[in-house]
Amino acid sequence: MHNSFIIKGNVCQTINPKELDLHENAFVICVNGVSKGIFNTIPDEFKNLPIYDYGDALIFPGMIDMHVHAPQFAFRGTSMDLELMDWLNRYTFPEEEKYEDLEYAKKAYDMFVKALKESATTRSVIFATRHRYATELLMELMEASGLISYVGKVNMDREASDNLTEKNADVSAYTTFGWINAVKDKFTRTKPILTPRFIPCCTDKLMEELREIQMAYGIPVQSHLSESKGEIDFVKFLRPKNSFYGDSYNEYDLFGKNDDIGVDVKTVMAHCVWSTDEEVELMHKNGVFVAHCPASNMNLTSGIAPIRKYLDLGLNVGLGSDVAGGHSLSIFRAITDAIQSSKMYFRMVNENYKPLVFSESFYLATKGGGEFFGKVGSFEDGYDFDAIVLNDNVLSHPQTLNLAERMERAVYLGLDEKNLTAKFVAGTKVL
Amino acid sequence: MHNSFIIKGNVCQTINPKELDLHENAFVICVNGVSKGIFNTIPDEFKNLPIYDYGDALIFPGMIDMHVHAPQFAFRGTSMDLELMDWLNRYTFPEEEKYEDLEYAKKAYDMFVKALKESATTRSVIFATRHRYATELLMELMEASGLISYVGKVNMDREASDNLTEKNADVSAYTTFGWINAVKDKFTRTKPILTPRFIPCCTDKLMEELREIQMAYGIPVQSHLSESKGEIDFVKFLRPKNSFYGDSYNEYDLFGKNDDIGVDVKTVMAHCVWSTDEEVELMHKNGVFVAHCPASNMNLTSGIAPIRKYLDLGLNVGLGSDVAGGHSLSIFRAITDAIQSSKMYFRMVNENYKPLVFSESFYLATKGGGEFFGKVGSFEDGYDFDAIVLNDNVLSHPQTLNLAERMERAVYLGLDEKNLTAKFVAGTKVL
Repeated sequence: MHNSFIIKGNVCQTINPKELDLHENAFVICVNGVSKGIFNTIPDEFKNLPIYDYGDALIFPGMIDMHVHAPQFAFRGTSMDLELMDWLNRYTFPEEEKYEDLEYAKKAYDMFVKALKESATTRSVIFATRHRYATELLMELMEASGLISYVGKVNMDREASDNLTEKNADVSAYTTFGWINAVKDKFTRTKPILTPRFIPCCTDKLMEELREIQMAYGIPVQSHLSESKGEIDFVKFLRPKNSFYGDSYNEYDLFGKNDDIGVDVKTVMAHCVWSTDEEVELMHKNGVFVAHCPASNMNLTSGIAPIRKYLDLGLNVGLGSDVAGGHSLSIFRAITDAIQSSKMYFRMVNENYKPLVFSESFYLATKGGGEFFGKVGSFEDGYDFDAIVLNDNVLSHPQTLNLAERMERAVYLGLDEKNLTAKFVAGTKVL
Repeated sequence: MHNSFIIKGNVCQTINPKELDLHENAFVICVNGVSKGIFNTIPDEFKNLPIYDYGDALIFPGMIDMHVHAPQFAFRGTSMDLELMDWLNRYTFPEEEKYEDLEYAKKAYDMFVKALKESATTRSVIFATRHRYATELLMELMEASGLISYVGKVNMDREASDNLTEKNADVSAYTTFGWINAVKDKFTRTKPILTPRFIPCCTDKLMEELREIQMAYGIPVQSHLSESKGEIDFVKFLRPKNSFYGDSYNEYDLFGKNDDIGVDVKTVMAHCVWSTDEEVELMHKNGVFVAHCPASNMNLTSGIAPIRKYLDLGLNVGLGSDVAGGHSLSIFRAITDAIQSSKMYFRMVNENYKPLVFSESFYLATKGGGEFFGKVGSFEDGYDFDAIVLNDNVLSHPQTLNLAERMERAVYLGLDEKNLTAKFVAGTKVL
């Protein structure tokens, strides 16, 4: 049996958002890359599988990064004193221009993929740049890493720097056809995702062509939505007919499922900080995923997304690092940032929306985002076997800690940075 | 000459809050523990001093932690789903009770001091517990570490758990006299600070006795102020005569300088999240320092302190980790948390208060808090020589970075954790 084995350790997960599911000295069984569940003793039928015994270590499901810009990893943690539109024009676009040069792209993407591989993230939804060949290179590197991802060649035919803007909608569409044809059956773990940068950078004609491409290939969609006030005003100016921002995507059937015409486009929208009630309602109806990126929303002074409201309404929500609006690739950090943000929203904005508790935010980082990939984000029977193993004995403490405390502490203190003992993605050991 | 030498590297500091002061491949000269300034070439008079050449490394002033609870280090990063008063009663007080046991205190404080020594912090203002002997033990460990600190035996004679509350005001005062007499001339680097826990835990009688103790010894004061809404309501209930929380300290002359009676009590108050205009005005008049602890204020759902307002009014402000309301000892983290918090305050609460920029927050972490210790927080001529040396070549990047970008990135990416090459406190090399 390929990718079949048992791991042993202290298993920590969230099956639902309301509580931690903890198993001391337990066995997780993986058969053909899929979990058979968590056991206190090994059932007879699995007695012959090899065992990785991780002793007293912690075992978590892998983290899901629902929104990250690979080319922005180069300047993470710099230029954080600006808001979105200035930050894009002054730092982001000039850096992304460089990916025309495949040698530079190789150097930069090697660093990104290495860092992602060494992190707690097992799956991610990635923006590349508008450059086809650099994007294919990134996909090759991602595939070789063993991680699972969606990667998008960006579409953008207006409102960026001259060197970054694609010549016109036809060129953008043509390049995208070429790219999808080249990559769609090439990789096992790495799949293309349609990636209009955001409405300000996409002409109506380009959106029309992206609709055609989506229908031709049935691939999922990622973009940005209602992130910052300046951006939203600009979208209103550009598309006065649409009553809200998300309607601009929906008009081109790039916004989740649409029962009227019988399409179901798997879609993730980053941010949704300022989504109107109408927009939220449509996202709910269409099953659009929210990629909540709290660090980025703080760094770029965008605001705080009302995640409690979205959860109460039943929206699909996962967490994103949004490097380099977010400065860290760590999804552990995103878990605690999401909690802190929700606390500030509760205290400073609206006390009707209770703060997220730890189990809820951990759930968003695992099963919440994992649903975008299928049955992913826990060790329940039938779920893809994504696991990270952490050695928390590097964190000193004089008193006894229970497993819940060890789990919370590992996340708050960022144990994912350089303290991974092992990492598995769909049953493949990548670290 | 004792503690006289030169260090060489890329020097990054803030002389004022508005701009970075950067010197590539520069020399910082230390004579008798005091900086002589930053030079491009070594002046003749210092030619004979030994040189530590740190090559391409970054050199920053040491970080100042204006508020940290040593006994809470044990449970940092756990129990973060509660607000202040519940958190104190359910986690903090039970943990602090254990410091009656000197064996436990030794074990726990060894861990705290080791972590603080390995951090970027060179000076700190520390809460111990109400236990005299454990506090003396902590002071001995701090002294041995080479770090400089104020350490306070806590006073608390009501409203905590039975085992933690001191029997009465007289016992609290008597113990405090004994403690101060034992430690006031014992150490070079470690000094006592008067530490009423906060108004809810101190009877009027105890406050009266602390006034006497302060006047007898002239030592500085630290406490908590206007942190959370529940706490403030409780203070209003306990002390209806005082028109605002800080007035309760001021009534006992434990709130900065008081020209009316000619006293000048160096005072730092942690948090000041909800300080009223009256309170802020008095803090300004009396020169009271604010210890801004953004991580703690987020974790305990306290709120966001309007630091821009305090800076505009000319208050003294430094940063605090507030472990374990804050989960990390890192003042680098506090720098970025302070920026993020101020951005959320600006965006979500009041757009009249512009977000902090990086240079401002770095200033707060160095010269802002440093002023509590004297001429501390930069390499200007006459300032105490506190320095950290950081190796940022562990952070990969494909492009060229200038020194300002390297400085900002080192702070955002938390390079203080385990990447210190060297550390000096008042000219003593401690790492």
